[in-house]
Amino acid sequence: MKKIKRALISLSNKDNLKKLLSILYKHKIEIISSGGTFKQIKKLKFKCIEISKYTGSPEILEGRVKTLHPKIYGGILSKRNNKIHKNDLLNNNFFEIDLVIVNFYPFEKTINITNSHSKIIENIDIGGPTMARAAAKNYNDVVVITNTNQYDNLINELNINKGKTTLKFRKKMSEKAFSETAYYDSLVANYFSKFNKNQFPQKKTIHGNLIEKLRYGENPHQNGAIYSSKKNLDIKQIHGKKLSYNNYNDIYSALNISKSFPKNVGTVIVKHNNPCGVSIIKNQLNSYLEALSCDPISAYGGIVSCNFKISKKLAMELSKNFLEVIVANGFKKDAIKLLAKKKNLRLIDSQNLNIKNTTSYISNFNSILVQSLDRTKFKKNNFKIVSKRKPNSEQLNNLIFAFNICRHVKSNAIVIANNQSTLGIGSGQTSRLDSCKIAIEKMKKFKPNHFENSVAASDAFFPFVDGIEKLVQAGISAIIQPYGSIRDKEIIKFANQTNTVLVFSKTRHFKH
Amino acid sequence: MKKIKRALISLSNKDNLKKLLSILYKHKIEIISSGGTFKQIKKLKFKCIEISKYTGSPEILEGRVKTLHPKIYGGILSKRNNKIHKNDLLNNNFFEIDLVIVNFYPFEKTINITNSHSKIIENIDIGGPTMARAAAKNYNDVVVITNTNQYDNLINELNINKGKTTLKFRKKMSEKAFSETAYYDSLVANYFSKFNKNQFPQKKTIHGNLIEKLRYGENPHQNGAIYSSKKNLDIKQIHGKKLSYNNYNDIYSALNISKSFPKNVGTVIVKHNNPCGVSIIKNQLNSYLEALSCDPISAYGGIVSCNFKISKKLAMELSKNFLEVIVANGFKKDAIKLLAKKKNLRLIDSQNLNIKNTTSYISNFNSILVQSLDRTKFKKNNFKIVSKRKPNSEQLNNLIFAFNICRHVKSNAIVIANNQSTLGIGSGQTSRLDSCKIAIEKMKKFKPNHFENSVAASDAFFPFVDGIEKLVQAGISAIIQPYGSIRDKEIIKFANQTNTVLVFSKTRHFKH
Repeated sequence: MKKIKRALISLSNKDNLKKLLSILYKHKIEIISSGGTFKQIKKLKFKCIEISKYTGSPEILEGRVKTLHPKIYGGILSKRNNKIHKNDLLNNNFFEIDLVIVNFYPFEKTINITNSHSKIIENIDIGGPTMARAAAKNYNDVVVITNTNQYDNLINELNINKGKTTLKFRKKMSEKAFSETAYYDSLVANYFSKFNKNQFPQKKTIHGNLIEKLRYGENPHQNGAIYSSKKNLDIKQIHGKKLSYNNYNDIYSALNISKSFPKNVGTVIVKHNNPCGVSIIKNQLNSYLEALSCDPISAYGGIVSCNFKISKKLAMELSKNFLEVIVANGFKKDAIKLLAKKKNLRLIDSQNLNIKNTTSYISNFNSILVQSLDRTKFKKNNFKIVSKRKPNSEQLNNLIFAFNICRHVKSNAIVIANNQSTLGIGSGQTSRLDSCKIAIEKMKKFKPNHFENSVAASDAFFPFVDGIEKLVQAGISAIIQPYGSIRDKEIIKFANQTNTVLVFSKTRHFKH
Repeated sequence: MKKIKRALISLSNKDNLKKLLSILYKHKIEIISSGGTFKQIKKLKFKCIEISKYTGSPEILEGRVKTLHPKIYGGILSKRNNKIHKNDLLNNNFFEIDLVIVNFYPFEKTINITNSHSKIIENIDIGGPTMARAAAKNYNDVVVITNTNQYDNLINELNINKGKTTLKFRKKMSEKAFSETAYYDSLVANYFSKFNKNQFPQKKTIHGNLIEKLRYGENPHQNGAIYSSKKNLDIKQIHGKKLSYNNYNDIYSALNISKSFPKNVGTVIVKHNNPCGVSIIKNQLNSYLEALSCDPISAYGGIVSCNFKISKKLAMELSKNFLEVIVANGFKKDAIKLLAKKKNLRLIDSQNLNIKNTTSYISNFNSILVQSLDRTKFKKNNFKIVSKRKPNSEQLNNLIFAFNICRHVKSNAIVIANNQSTLGIGSGQTSRLDSCKIAIEKMKKFKPNHFENSVAASDAFFPFVDGIEKLVQAGISAIIQPYGSIRDKEIIKFANQTNTVLVFSKTRHFKH
């Protein structure tokens, strides 16, 4: 237990200061403070020593140097049970500082509201993080408070322990302080990397705010939590049971697809991180019905994501099925009313989520694989028609649709489509031929009358003719795939023999 | 362009100091330094002012406070083109410091070599990061060097520009400085979180060292890189073509499986992030042959990972196939010689990789999903035999094997096995029934004579009887699955009617 005699307060965010000062006053804690914080404390009619008077050193460089003084750091960093330290303080007329309350210039806020580089730079705090770090290092003797949301904890601690603090509390606050400084400098470093157009700096940090601890991770014996690189996730749950780890994972898989659709168009249904039905036909209600009809069995318990606002009419259709989550760019009031009758059904408003974030991370053992996301949209002029038979415009549009869905299906991926809707999706196979078989089987089972005008896309090249052969036998009239097999010529020959349209996309869309 | 007149040097790592000092001397740069760095500079016979003389303030608290002084920070932080700043320096007898060369107490090294908390705490640098951050903030006028590996860049810059530096260079160095401080505090924060047993702190940072930029990401139109949370990846390439993003991803998928095997036992073959064959039979050579025979077509171009040292005999077998990567706990010399005949074949020694890391991250839009890894190994006493027929010990061992492989197969996952080897793997399906069909089809195709004594595992519960029915029809004699379907009773009844062993694992192994 340590008694607090002297506090240093230096705040950028001066919220909730009054109740804090009252408790410090109650416990007869002397206060040192600088600049705006000093003025605010005086305004609130509490006693306070100005830091420049305390150190005998003036504030200079328009506030850039205020607290960086040995009298301050001697006071913070001295080990109370160390005789040398004690004598150093005595000899220099320095005094112990037992509590540091600090928060930093609002760098994060600044980068969110301005592009002015000089304003942003001016909002990099130097003194604040130094005080926080010094106090956190010396947590054995010193308490550090680095966020206004910790005031209640401090007040509580001082009240319970009559002006003293426990080691456990100080250690906890020290952890928080370092997580604040790490987070802060991660923001600054990432800002500079972006500014310098350096995608892969030598040392990289990724930062996040805890949004919520989840009931568990992917499975009940794993712990899980979700963080945001911002203050929140930009998706908003408006109804239903708490989201699970797998819900979040599936929601983002679905949003990756639905956010790639044309404006206000398209529905995707996701199950186990793979789409089981996708449609971007313009009629919104029908886009759901088409997506559903692709594989209604898999859709059971799935996640529907609509790239538009959900109407009551669609809500009625949606409620006919058992779904875990419905994601949409908003819900009409009467749609919510209707859907909310299902107590557990989670409704997610995704209209504020944008696709600005362009980098993905995935950890494995001690490694982190970092890459830019697969968001480039390839179109006609990227492709090469290699068969004698040329696609008509409908076929071409369906080929482009199927190929753009392919990128969201776990490799090896085969997507069969017509009418801007999927007919069969083959995913997650170690052999491309198997993915073809699965896609065909799904189509035959659920869309037996559609396959005559259908097209197929493959996320990577066919190594052999066999996959294409299967597709053509099933009635597929046009196929898009990258190129690159040593059997490409053979494949073109086969396409020509069977009067099939064959398009080389020249790019691939692996997703693992 | 800015001329450097005065440098502040404060180093924990004093390597390569001499050539740096020579260049500073050549350009008539005045040097200020503290403690050990000052002594080292004098020892190398260069001129240097001791920092306590410079500031007029003694070093106190056994070195805890040396540089934290307004004369230092006024000198670093003053804007050269600002009259108020100029006057502040003049009035206080402060002088501009144009170059800061600093590196930090070796916190990372310390946590790697000791568990002594007090030693670790003492190695949290306060002054160093503050100097670095202040100089980096003022990069418009000041150069900051924060790593010995940047000395050559500085020397080069000064030589080219005759003692001056460009804004571009200073900006680059500033980015590096903030990435050093962010990385450093991320280490400290994570150390404290671990120490406080706080798995999900409110603010979290993840840090990594760039191991290499990759030719591209998952696809050629994506950029990719691999980082390590340590200095290196602990896996070592000993032969072959440069590893790609997908190679790394597959290697780690394979290692997740092979590192879960009993010591010196077992082989897995991975393709597109899913295992296509696994065996843990004790004979090492046969474990490869068994894994291969499960699906030799998918194994083509795959990644083999052996949880033992590869012999020449096995190498001969391995070289009969086209493989992208072979991973092993070492290779015998004659095995390397043999395998290295294939120029492109990548050989990876994984013997130094351990599975200590227990947390995984995955990013989606602005979110990061964090969870503890699925490493808990469930055994007999976790399971419940619910059928009338009880498994014999061979069946039980195979059930445990199949269930433990399940966790590494993308959901929905069905693994059929006997003799501690997989016979058919169904992966990545939106419907569990489809995964059953795929696993059965693979078994019938590649292992037609084995299925009589085979067992099957499902990563999650069967919602209906249909999946189990398919498996039993295919000759499966024992099945393990979690429980939880409203049709569990029906499923048990079906197992009893067909004299099938049914075990409830009570836990599931989703992997997406």
